[in-house]
Amino acid sequence: MGRAGCVVDLSAAYRLRDASLYPQWYGFVHDQPALLAQAVFGLPELHRGELSGAALVATPGCHVTAATLALAPLVNAGLIEPTGVVVDSITGVSGAGRALKHTSLFCTADEDVTAYGLLDHRHTPEIEQEVGAQVLFTPHLAPLSRGLLATCYARPSAAVSTESLLGALRDAYSGEPFVVVDEASPSTKATLGSNMAHLTARFDERTGTVMAICAIDNIAKGASGGAVQAANVALGLAETAGLSVVGMYP
Amino acid sequence: MGRAGCVVDLSAAYRLRDASLYPQWYGFVHDQPALLAQAVFGLPELHRGELSGAALVATPGCHVTAATLALAPLVNAGLIEPTGVVVDSITGVSGAGRALKHTSLFCTADEDVTAYGLLDHRHTPEIEQEVGAQVLFTPHLAPLSRGLLATCYARPSAAVSTESLLGALRDAYSGEPFVVVDEASPSTKATLGSNMAHLTARFDERTGTVMAICAIDNIAKGASGGAVQAANVALGLAETAGLSVVGMYP
Amino acid sequence: MGRAGCVVDLSAAYRLRDASLYPQWYGFVHDQPALLAQAVFGLPELHRGELSGAALVATPGCHVTAATLALAPLVNAGLIEPTGVVVDSITGVSGAGRALKHTSLFCTADEDVTAYGLLDHRHTPEIEQEVGAQVLFTPHLAPLSRGLLATCYARPSAAVSTESLLGALRDAYSGEPFVVVDEASPSTKATLGSNMAHLTARFDERTGTVMAICAIDNIAKGASGGAVQAANVALGLAETAGLSVVGMYP
Amino acid sequence: MGRAGCVVDLSAAYRLRDASLYPQWYGFVHDQPALLAQAVFGLPELHRGELSGAALVATPGCHVTAATLALAPLVNAGLIEPTGVVVDSITGVSGAGRALKHTSLFCTADEDVTAYGLLDHRHTPEIEQEVGAQVLFTPHLAPLSRGLLATCYARPSAAVSTESLLGALRDAYSGEPFVVVDEASPSTKATLGSNMAHLTARFDERTGTVMAICAIDNIAKGASGGAVQAANVALGLAETAGLSVVGMYP
Repeated sequence: MGRAGCVVDLSAAYRLRDASLYPQWYGFVHDQPALLAQAVFGLPELHRGELSGAALVATPGCHVTAATLALAPLVNAGLIEPTGVVVDSITGVSGAGRALKHTSLFCTADEDVTAYGLLDHRHTPEIEQEVGAQVLFTPHLAPLSRGLLATCYARPSAAVSTESLLGALRDAYSGEPFVVVDEASPSTKATLGSNMAHLTARFDERTGTVMAICAIDNIAKGASGGAVQAANVALGLAETAGLSVVGMYP
Repeated sequence: MGRAGCVVDLSAAYRLRDASLYPQWYGFVHDQPALLAQAVFGLPELHRGELSGAALVATPGCHVTAATLALAPLVNAGLIEPTGVVVDSITGVSGAGRALKHTSLFCTADEDVTAYGLLDHRHTPEIEQEVGAQVLFTPHLAPLSRGLLATCYARPSAAVSTESLLGALRDAYSGEPFVVVDEASPSTKATLGSNMAHLTARFDERTGTVMAICAIDNIAKGASGGAVQAANVALGLAETAGLSVVGMYP
Repeated sequence: MGRAGCVVDLSAAYRLRDASLYPQWYGFVHDQPALLAQAVFGLPELHRGELSGAALVATPGCHVTAATLALAPLVNAGLIEPTGVVVDSITGVSGAGRALKHTSLFCTADEDVTAYGLLDHRHTPEIEQEVGAQVLFTPHLAPLSRGLLATCYARPSAAVSTESLLGALRDAYSGEPFVVVDEASPSTKATLGSNMAHLTARFDERTGTVMAICAIDNIAKGASGGAVQAANVALGLAETAGLSVVGMYP
Repeated sequence: MGRAGCVVDLSAAYRLRDASLYPQWYGFVHDQPALLAQAVFGLPELHRGELSGAALVATPGCHVTAATLALAPLVNAGLIEPTGVVVDSITGVSGAGRALKHTSLFCTADEDVTAYGLLDHRHTPEIEQEVGAQVLFTPHLAPLSRGLLATCYARPSAAVSTESLLGALRDAYSGEPFVVVDEASPSTKATLGSNMAHLTARFDERTGTVMAICAIDNIAKGASGGAVQAANVALGLAETAGLSVVGMYP
């Protein structure tokens, strides 16, 4: 009897490389720390090389995919300070899964906006690990089924402009099949049902603040679509295999 | 023939005390600068004394009411730095009024989240004037009719804690009929159809960031309800007159 | 020790006068048949006289209120046949209460329309009892929190016209504080948060079909608001007491 | 210069074979009555043979597709009377297109249900033509973007049962790639983004009424998807070409 050639895990069990973060953020001691070292974070845009042939893929949380795509190139290019970063994201109710919770009922979520997980949301250490910066992460729930918009704020660590920020994102994602960088403010609906991530950035000269925004479908690129993409890379298949739908509007 | 004893203006025409802000943010030269000096900003929680007997009341924009209620007491108490403040707010489609615009169509707004007015939204100088701080303001549109949640981020200028921030808000709004300060994360739906503002605050020790959140109904406390409240004060009526519940359409 | 002067029951326990309907539609034998004879159906527009001083009031289901207000005057005026009546109604998710069910989750109900309880919905015998006709009742679930629209179809039993149908409704509800009869097609949103019922009717000469439509807020006039109205009548209070506006959550 | 081999028209211009219906329902005299005789109604499930090689295809309105799929097989099998048929349908806002109308605004449509086009909706004669019965058609608007559910009522013209009705539908659609007949009550969301039609039927012995229900995505099978399917047949392509998406949930 053989073993699986590749496990793509959608849980958080293997996302954090530092085992000490599990007690702090998840409240348990990780009992397979050796596997943490083997697991590859399932974001091909950042880890394509390591993913090739990986035996264990840890797919990111949906907020993490959006925040990381928006911020990692700016940190890597030395354009933003790696402290004091704010990730303020808004997502639909499907992010909470199909569990029967009062907060997921139609009459509770409909016509409501609220922030949750203030200061201690479990996706925080993943974002920090992947972005390479200290991050305050605040997710918000809005009345839609699918869609996630992450609006990120940081301080510049160099002379930047809206053009240089957009340029850094374009350089990072040149040739990426599932990332679009544009001056326009992205809309989650434009990504609905697709594996696409839509990005923009701004530098506010008036206040000296960098903004980067990413829109995805939280259960496509933010979950199952992203997992298929990572599996494709791990298994040596065409990265876009099974992911050809380009979004459904309206 | 007499004159009106009190004008309560819901437009932005008299909100900014500094006439030079009109060309910068609105693109025109204000032709009644003398009236700007007479106008009182219609937020009773901050300007109750001046409003009493006022002849010209400039009611705030909806985002401004929420951001100001969340941040002004923290600036006034010397708890946050007056620079680098971020106001990230989310609101429903009624904020855009009844004008026939594609962005206000059901099929455009439904199942969508997007940020608009990046860097240059016209409510920015109002927020800065009333909060007394430099602010980057980013509004987001979500698929609901009514409701506005402002999530605000700032750096502390003193030793603060979640308790001291909540205490500063409670002190500022002690006795206010339309403001509730609580540890719970506020929900716009809890304010739907009422003139209430629900507030909370947090200090994130890990990243050294202050958060303050305010939820209102953007067309009640954020518009017509707030205008009635300000008119009540200006005219010497009971401040809560006509506001036990306010209208709920749409 | 005394007894309650008046019980207003919101369940279905005392709505059906004929005890034999309980086994058929609810699957149990009613063990208090004597109380069924004493209970008064809590729809003041039809039973105001009996409700005065009633000790036990059985408030109607929400679909029943809408269908009965639309159809009973037409049956009573001899304008429609008491067989072959169709009640096709659409309601929001609050009709299912706060129970944790998959069908009540936001992601299930959002962007969906479906019919439920085909042929055997338990509100059917109530409608038949109050309308005085044999009825096929089909409720539909749509993605809104509150609101119920009943579109009813019947065959004429006399020479009718749109005018005579509207006239019969206007006669029946002349002086009613919570019923509006109009030529316009009613909208549930116009009744949101209020105890109002909005009605219209049409005669389609082409197909020989009578239509009557009623819109209510299913948790105001269709539940708690209607119960307060009935209690007011039972207790001899002003019928509109406490109902100038009713609650609007969710 | 050549001519187009095949025109697939999405307007109503060539849907009605009887030119006299245009003045009655549309208010104009058709000036190309000869083309009406050449046009083939673009519903492959009913007109596959005629569509093959057709030069002019008139694609159905969305309500028409749903009502016709539900009712035509029952009329054709002699199971229902061709008079007194009621089609009560519910659809989302995309049915009104992208025109800037107050009824299409988010704040108007959100949390609202209303019936429109009472007695004289222009899709009525199309339904009658394709179903082969006299029909009263009443569409309703509900707060969703996409999705259409038609609930149809008729009187039996023979001894029928739920089983025989389902059997007639299954016989009619055996082998159809885009039609599913099932005992379950169909849900529009299960067809979202796909070219599928989901059908069920019931016979209510108590009231002697036949019900048939059809769910589609009004802008897929009900519009562009159906047009592609008809074009495929007309041009001799595989009928499912370009229509492989099977629905998006949630």
